[in-house]
Order: sequence, then C-alpha cells, then structure tokens
Amino acid sequence: MTQTLPAGLTVTARVPASTANIGPGFDTLGLALGYFDEITVTTTEAGLTVRVEGEGADDVPCGPSHLVVRAIERGLEVAGVWVGGLDVYCRNVIPHSRGLGSSASAAVGGLAAANGLVSKLDPALALSQAQLVQLSSEFEGHPDNASASVLGGAVVSWYEEPSETGEPRQFFATRLEVHPDIRIVALVPAEHSSTALTRSLLPELVPHADAAFNVSRAALAVVALTERPELLMAATEDRLHQSQRAAALPLTTRWVALLREHGIAAVVSGAGPTVLALAKQPLPDELRLAAEAEGMVVLDLEVADGVQVH
Amino acid sequence: MTQTLPAGLTVTARVPASTANIGPGFDTLGLALGYFDEITVTTTEAGLTVRVEGEGADDVPCGPSHLVVRAIERGLEVAGVWVGGLDVYCRNVIPHSRGLGSSASAAVGGLAAANGLVSKLDPALALSQAQLVQLSSEFEGHPDNASASVLGGAVVSWYEEPSETGEPRQFFATRLEVHPDIRIVALVPAEHSSTALTRSLLPELVPHADAAFNVSRAALAVVALTERPELLMAATEDRLHQSQRAAALPLTTRWVALLREHGIAAVVSGAGPTVLALAKQPLPDELRLAAEAEGMVVLDLEVADGVQVH
Repeated sequence: MTQTLPAGLTVTARVPASTANIGPGFDTLGLALGYFDEITVTTTEAGLTVRVEGEGADDVPCGPSHLVVRAIERGLEVAGVWVGGLDVYCRNVIPHSRGLGSSASAAVGGLAAANGLVSKLDPALALSQAQLVQLSSEFEGHPDNASASVLGGAVVSWYEEPSETGEPRQFFATRLEVHPDIRIVALVPAEHSSTALTRSLLPELVPHADAAFNVSRAALAVVALTERPELLMAATEDRLHQSQRAAALPLTTRWVALLREHGIAAVVSGAGPTVLALAKQPLPDELRLAAEAEGMVVLDLEVADGVQVH
Repeated sequence: MTQTLPAGLTVTARVPASTANIGPGFDTLGLALGYFDEITVTTTEAGLTVRVEGEGADDVPCGPSHLVVRAIERGLEVAGVWVGGLDVYCRNVIPHSRGLGSSASAAVGGLAAANGLVSKLDPALALSQAQLVQLSSEFEGHPDNASASVLGGAVVSWYEEPSETGEPRQFFATRLEVHPDIRIVALVPAEHSSTALTRSLLPELVPHADAAFNVSRAALAVVALTERPELLMAATEDRLHQSQRAAALPLTTRWVALLREHGIAAVVSGAGPTVLALAKQPLPDELRLAAEAEGMVVLDLEVADGVQVH
C-alpha cells in the first residue's frame, strides 16, 4: 500500500562534485570532490516551489535544478511513497557544464533527499546505495560521476546492458580509498562544455593497440590512486578520449600538456573543460598564477565522502 | 672493466609458471602460479652443456631450453660479466605452448640464474627487479607473463614505446597481493597453442564501446583480485581478445562458457588453450571429472612468489 509523506518533513542533502573519465578510465574512473551543493527539501500540503541560489539560479526550471525535482520524484516513486507538495531549495556551488559533474550531483542530491524523507516515514522503505547508484546513473546514461557522488572516494564503475529490450542499463560501482598523499587541483575555465557534443567527437572504432593501452593504464590507475601515487603519470595516460576531443578544448588541452611537462599528472575532468591535476606536491605558484591569468579558477580540493543527508 | 666468473659457481633458479591476459586485462594482468621450473647453472672453464628433464627434453637446443641459455647470456652481458663456459640443467614442469607462460619462465629463470652468479662475484653488479622485468619482457615483446614470474603475485604490467627508433620498448610492472580467498584452477588441454597464431586473430580495429568496456572491467579486475573477489565474474568479462580467438580454441571456449554458467570466473589463460578458473570455492567434482574426461589435466594452483635463486 502506498504511504504518503506528511507535510512539514525537512531534509538537507549535501552532495559532492565529481570528476570522471580520469585519464584512461573513460566511463570508469570517478572521484568525489570536496565542493558541495546543498538541497533542502520540505514536504508541503500541495504544489511545488523551487528556489535556487548560486550556480544556475537563472535557469529555473529548465536547468539542473529541474533535474533535482525530477530526481526527488524518481526517488519517491521507486520507494513507493506519495507526497502532497514539495518546497525545494538549492544552494549551488558546483559550476555547471565544466566537467565537474554538476548534473550528476543534482540527480544524486535529489534522490538522496527523497531517500531521507522516505527514511523518516519508514526506514524499511529506504533505497540502498546500489539503488542510488542505479537511479542516479540512469539520468546520465553512464555511471562514473553519479556513483562517485553517491559512494564518495574514488570509484570504479561499470554497467551491463539489459537482457530485455526497454529495460535500463544496470549500473554498478565500487569505492576505492584514495592514497592520502594525492592532492587534487581543478583548473576551471570560464567556458562551458557540452558532454553531448564532446561525446560525439569520439570515433566509432579505435585501434586494438589503443584499447589495450588504455586497459593497462586503467588497471594501473587503480593501483596508483590507492597505493602507488608515484605511478600517476603513467597511470593517467590515455588514447581513447582526450586527444579525440582536443580540438574542441584548446585551452584545456594546452594546460593538460603543460602540467604534464612539469611532471604533474593532469587529465581532462569528465568531458571538460576543467583540467584536473593529481600530484603529491601542491601546484607550483607560477603555474597557479599563469592559469588564473588565462581566466581559470584554481580550486584545491579534498577527496569527498558520498552524499550526506540530515 | 669486465669481470670474469670463476669456474665452479653454481646457482639454482626456481621460477613459477604464469597466466596472462586475464579476462579484460589483455597484455596487462598476469599472475604467478605455483608450478615451477628449476634451472641449475654451473660455471665451467669452457664450452656449453645443456641437459633438460621433463617438458621439452626432446627439443634441445631449439625449444625454450635454448631460450634459457640465451637468457643467461643476456643477463651476464647486461651485468657486464664474462664466463668461460656453462653447464645448464633444466628440470621443466611447466607445460609448453599451453598458455602457462613457459617461455617467459625460461627467460626469467635464465636471467635470474645469471643474476645469481653475478651476485656471487660482486653484489654491486646485480640486476634490479625492474631490469629483470625489462630484459625478460624483451624476449616476448609483452610483459604480463614475464613480470609475473619476476615479481610474483598478480601484476599490472604496461609498456612505453621508445623515443628513439631501434631502442626496445620500456616494460614496467607493479605487484598486487591476491585476495587470500581466491582459489586458482588451471584446466590444461593436451593440444598446443601458438601465441603468434592466436595473436594474428586479433582485429586491427575494435569498437570504442568495446575498448571502454574492457577499460572498466580491467580496472574492476584489480579491485576484485585484491579486495573484492565477489566481483570476479563481472571483473573477468572481456571483449578484446577471447571471442576473437574462440574459433581457434573450441574446447577452451566451450569450457570457459561452461564454468561461467556455473558462476565460476573462468578465462583463457594467456593465448590459450589452458582455461583458468578463479573462484572462492573449489572446482566442483562433477566439473573436474568432466574436464578430465575431455583430456584436460586439472591443476589446483597457489599464487606464487617471484623467481627465487639459491
């Protein structure tokens, strides 16, 4: 029997940004970043109000904030819970369309908030982490950003095609603990990027040797991120997505190369344009200043835990 | 100044078999198996005598035993040490041309034996493990079998193309500790396989989606082998080499599928024909008997340490 949430329940989800496609780990390696959106949801008698502060405040209801609402509704639907109305308040910090997973964070935040409400009604109805990975990844079609925001840390994610036509892909992820010596810096350009566009730049076919190359480096990346940070340079080499998108991301591509020339394991974050640097040392000041001089925001980021609800 | 080994020095190298190309980990994931060849080398005043017992005894000097001699000579050459003559005695157990890395073991055993002799002359001349990985991998052109026999455990191996034409590829590997719950069974058919032949069956180009598939599963394989054996089924799926070689390995292919239908993470060992099964449970008796009835030798194997010299 469907239960209904009473009016007046409130939860806040604090959801981390994420990076994905790390180096060789196309659609595979994600990382939760300590840069957080907060979504506060209150049940009401009727209607829907959405307020957005910060990133995307001008986009309601068509931007990711709308995605938050869809994610809340999806979470309630899967839990089998009904609600009269909702008041949704988004305090957004994660920049949009920069390769920092803001859409995935919106989906994860909405689902986690819904799950928090459901848990207040009946903990037995709460969705599992595996369900949150599945439902949040369905919004994007690939799991590396979303599962990082759900699970925290670094993730290896994968999916299986459904056996029945019309069923969704089955998404999975497992969390890795990032080596404590690894520092993360994001260089965020002012320009936006479209994942749909950059994805269209990928070829249908690739050389077997390039596939084998990324297989080796992706396996190595797991080792480097968790146990052997001194191997990060070799472990972040890629032949499957970054060079194919380079022409669409000239600033990003130049900075990835420049940082790598300095021995800093830099990669394109997600589908760009953000540059992600992984290193045991802080970013040298001259590189930081040079990046800022080119209009990039330089963020020193911690590895984050997964979405929290209170 | 080149030093010369005195006559009468003796060392024995005990070198493990290996598997490679584990599931998605083409040219990447290897594993040292507790099945050992022993190579005893004694320095003499002049000449070369080679005796082989066991596998390959009829092939001297053109089989892998010849490779042992070449590997010894290569090891001495790189260490900068001269010798008057050698007596080489090989006790071979690892079956040849079955996908259990016997050639790599021969190369590693010869190099390690040479290194043992060199160390007796002057420990400062001894080759490092990284050099042993490099030199042994050069004999094969890919590093996953050889580096497993050098380092032991499971390995992630990779290589870089040389910056100068004519220089060898640079080979690298890092060791992983295999989860203690993982049991390894090799099903060894009577038929031989040729790596050169099976390698020629691989396509030049593959779908980007298949490359990304193996990237995910290879990253997952590192996690499953070390921390999460319950993920071994998903972590051993492959789209880059096994199905492409299936027609050349009908018995192998049928048994990989049969074991996987039973929930046992089976893969082709190396380029076949051996089937490698990774599982938390022992191989069920009915499958063991059925494999033997089809002419396969069923070996329960431990994960081995790298080559030992005494």
